[in-house]
Amino acid sequence: MSHRAYQVVKEAEVIIGYKTYIKLITQLVSDNQEIISSGMTKEIDRCNLALQKALAGQNVCLVSSGDPGVYGMAGIMLEVVKGNGLLGQIEVETVPGITAANAAAAVLGAPLMHDYVVISLSDLLTPWETIAKRVELAAQGDFVIVLYNPKSKGRVKQIELVREILLQEKPENTPVGIVTNAKREGETFVISDLKNFTSEEINMFSVVIIGNSQTFSFENHMITPRGYKV
Amino acid sequence: MSHRAYQVVKEAEVIIGYKTYIKLITQLVSDNQEIISSGMTKEIDRCNLALQKALAGQNVCLVSSGDPGVYGMAGIMLEVVKGNGLLGQIEVETVPGITAANAAAAVLGAPLMHDYVVISLSDLLTPWETIAKRVELAAQGDFVIVLYNPKSKGRVKQIELVREILLQEKPENTPVGIVTNAKREGETFVISDLKNFTSEEINMFSVVIIGNSQTFSFENHMITPRGYKV
Repeated sequence: MSHRAYQVVKEAEVIIGYKTYIKLITQLVSDNQEIISSGMTKEIDRCNLALQKALAGQNVCLVSSGDPGVYGMAGIMLEVVKGNGLLGQIEVETVPGITAANAAAAVLGAPLMHDYVVISLSDLLTPWETIAKRVELAAQGDFVIVLYNPKSKGRVKQIELVREILLQEKPENTPVGIVTNAKREGETFVISDLKNFTSEEINMFSVVIIGNSQTFSFENHMITPRGYKV
Repeated sequence: MSHRAYQVVKEAEVIIGYKTYIKLITQLVSDNQEIISSGMTKEIDRCNLALQKALAGQNVCLVSSGDPGVYGMAGIMLEVVKGNGLLGQIEVETVPGITAANAAAAVLGAPLMHDYVVISLSDLLTPWETIAKRVELAAQGDFVIVLYNPKSKGRVKQIELVREILLQEKPENTPVGIVTNAKREGETFVISDLKNFTSEEINMFSVVIIGNSQTFSFENHMITPRGYKV
């Protein structure tokens, strides 16, 4: 958590968020702050509520995990403000955070030292064809590939399809890191390879990082060299 | 800066870094800490020195800007440790940070709400053909595109070539955000479009973010919608 995020949470009169993320900041919250938590699929309701409270003159903090601007709440909030004709009229600050990609990379060592892509495998709002095409192009470009939302209880096929697409372009022994609960309680990680990684435990708290052609793993570390002569 | 990064700087006996980044943390440093700063191209020397100090039993902090694992020092440090046969034997912790991409995105609003790529235009260690190909594939995949090291005093052509490549695939009015000194003293930003953005001031402290087909700009904000019905 950044100093600025800490400060913003502390100064807020109202804190609104998905319940899992509200739980993560419980120890920062004081009795005179109003806390509103709600479940999944209530994203737009939360933003409407945040706007209502802000219009009533309150200092509102909308909480999101990782970085609120990377598959988080920042964009939805701004769209709701715009939809109400208020963008530029009420003050909205996006506080950047440490993304799941960066937290997971730090756990693995340094896999993101060269050009990389971030792709979410959730096909709730994005057609699967678009996702599959992006995975293929990322492999063709020899990008390091970071996968968000790789698998959930109800969505298990996508990660297998990604593996198949990548095996058309990349060697079987390409290092693959899986980090679950990166930099949080219960953190675990494993370094596998493109052939075998889908047999490891992967869930909705996991980030999967697939190396480029230069990435190597060694002593529980995953490293993408930049090309310096070490 | 994250709480953990702050703590690590405070606890270190030796702090080593590129002089520009050492300057950014001057106010955190105390008299009984040894500070070693050096110039550009001294990356490997800095890592060797850090290793030496660590082997002598000191708590060493190697400082890097943004996230040390994204085009930063984490990978080089791990390679130097490995080169000396010490990986797994001395403790190396990578502390994740807020990348320039995330800081710049927060300044612009929420341009990274969907799949994105991060590409460095520095062709010092990477052949230009590789970089150009990646830009082209990123455009084909309709990724949001983040450009690091877009331009420096001696390297001005690359950003123009990128513009030409992108104009083959994307409309002229695609929003382009340029943020210089994101979340630092002297921060400036401008939102332009693919046709015109290279006429804006871009330097080595700038990050350039090019929207996908859904990205729009409005009232000094750049937003990539996720697809929620707002």
